[in-house]
Amino acid sequence: MRALIYDGTTAQVLDRPAPSLAPGTALVRMIRAGVCNTDLEIVRGYMGFRGVLGHELFGEVVEGPDAWRGKRVASEINFACGSCAACAGGLGRHCPTRTVMGILGADGAFAELVRVPVANLHEVPDGVSADAAAFLEPLAAAFEILEQVHVRPGLACTVLGDGKLGLLAAQVLHQAGARVLAVGKHAEKLAILARRGIATAARGAWTRAPADLVVEATGTAKGFEAAIAATRPRGTLVLKSTVADGVQLDLAPIVINEITVVGSRCGSFAPAIRALESGSVDVTSLVSARFPLRDAAEALRRAAAGGVLKVLLEGE
Amino acid sequence: MRALIYDGTTAQVLDRPAPSLAPGTALVRMIRAGVCNTDLEIVRGYMGFRGVLGHELFGEVVEGPDAWRGKRVASEINFACGSCAACAGGLGRHCPTRTVMGILGADGAFAELVRVPVANLHEVPDGVSADAAAFLEPLAAAFEILEQVHVRPGLACTVLGDGKLGLLAAQVLHQAGARVLAVGKHAEKLAILARRGIATAARGAWTRAPADLVVEATGTAKGFEAAIAATRPRGTLVLKSTVADGVQLDLAPIVINEITVVGSRCGSFAPAIRALESGSVDVTSLVSARFPLRDAAEALRRAAAGGVLKVLLEGE
Repeated sequence: MRALIYDGTTAQVLDRPAPSLAPGTALVRMIRAGVCNTDLEIVRGYMGFRGVLGHELFGEVVEGPDAWRGKRVASEINFACGSCAACAGGLGRHCPTRTVMGILGADGAFAELVRVPVANLHEVPDGVSADAAAFLEPLAAAFEILEQVHVRPGLACTVLGDGKLGLLAAQVLHQAGARVLAVGKHAEKLAILARRGIATAARGAWTRAPADLVVEATGTAKGFEAAIAATRPRGTLVLKSTVADGVQLDLAPIVINEITVVGSRCGSFAPAIRALESGSVDVTSLVSARFPLRDAAEALRRAAAGGVLKVLLEGE
Repeated sequence: MRALIYDGTTAQVLDRPAPSLAPGTALVRMIRAGVCNTDLEIVRGYMGFRGVLGHELFGEVVEGPDAWRGKRVASEINFACGSCAACAGGLGRHCPTRTVMGILGADGAFAELVRVPVANLHEVPDGVSADAAAFLEPLAAAFEILEQVHVRPGLACTVLGDGKLGLLAAQVLHQAGARVLAVGKHAEKLAILARRGIATAARGAWTRAPADLVVEATGTAKGFEAAIAATRPRGTLVLKSTVADGVQLDLAPIVINEITVVGSRCGSFAPAIRALESGSVDVTSLVSARFPLRDAAEALRRAAAGGVLKVLLEGE
């Protein structure tokens, strides 16, 4: 089968044997797969990953338990042991021996066939399009904010960054009832939010008082410092980006203003599926381009270009 | 009167006019004042402060309202406006127009007489010695952890750093019922905790599993990284030090493990007073040296020496 393989040096589409079914797993024929900034980080060396890239998967089960065969599915990306304390507590996403689809020790979604544990599958309702379903993983990551932080109706919330995650987080917080201000540098990206009734402002041209909740989704050191300054004393700053590594930071304002910084990664899919079904979040406006799987390397390059939002791969 | 003045270059004991009483204030004759690491940071330029140093004050009210005159008192250090939203919400410690005793725009405790707002005074019970009462401010800062984080009985808690704040935080968490492991590099400092029944370990020679709650009290970038590694996924890291500014940090583990970092500064005095009264916390074992006010500059030098815990100034 075709798959986009990263060998530590380059990412290219190669032929490789299809995965075989193992107990407790299913084979999913990829229909759509989304390119994430994490994929771009991985091909720059992040996580030391080697193998099939990609962790935003929508497809159809072609092999596996009878109950699942033929179903339209998305897959959670953390493959957990199912028996440790973290898993017993419902936090398989933090299982210490987990592998992670296309990120850590498990082949990913940029392939004709993807093997995933049945425990990770979620059926996608017919009313949710293939394009939209490819957003379930990042949308679940945005909903993770609601799981970690008590977002009361009317909570003042500033979202910094108008990339994919920023646009999803702003919408999730907005539909939860927060008073969202989304700050970014791309008028056409912010317009997606404005159409949903969300207040937006250009970076460097906003004056809102420090907010109860701030989401840092720029992935830059400058963005993190701006996020600290945008958070009120005793407020909460959600850190969504893993890319600002090795940055020079002054932590004193966090202590002086007693800010709570909440690291936030993957979320559960259920609320994200409901949001796509009800239309409370618009994801398809974020699609910038589609490529067939055979052009996956080109898709990665496109995703890295300025101003581009979501690039999708299509199964063949 | 005598006071230890920092002029931006050196800190020296000088004669200066005594403060005058203003409406809503009291004059406190200093009996004991503690030297804090923040004082040492200030004479290296932190906060750009100029004036009388010191913010850990125990004394006797000599001028002010009748109800307070003659009382043994300690003083909270944040001088708030009393009318803004933060103050109305009971968080004068975060009043945006506050001054802070010996730190920001207000003269401090290393003087014969100190002027403080009456609203900041706390009466110190007779059973609490002058030496112990000088610890109320840093002890309240340790109790602040209990106000910000839900410390359930049995919670696994690792305290990194055996300086003054680490020793106070470990004791506060221990008396709250947490299972504390205190990690430090000075056997004689850790022994103070061991005498209270607190588990201790030498830095680099401990193997506890990542804990629910970690308190970073080393004030170093290395300590912060060790603290992140010592925190379990979805656990809480309390950041107590303002001194690790401008450090190179990899934030990815905070995001990947969804750690909550809680900046923590000053606390309210009431629980600290009760702890000293009941003896649930031992502070007097932390006294390394006492100096008369006239030798305050020498006291600062002593406080900066390795292995020294609390240095106290005595009123004359």
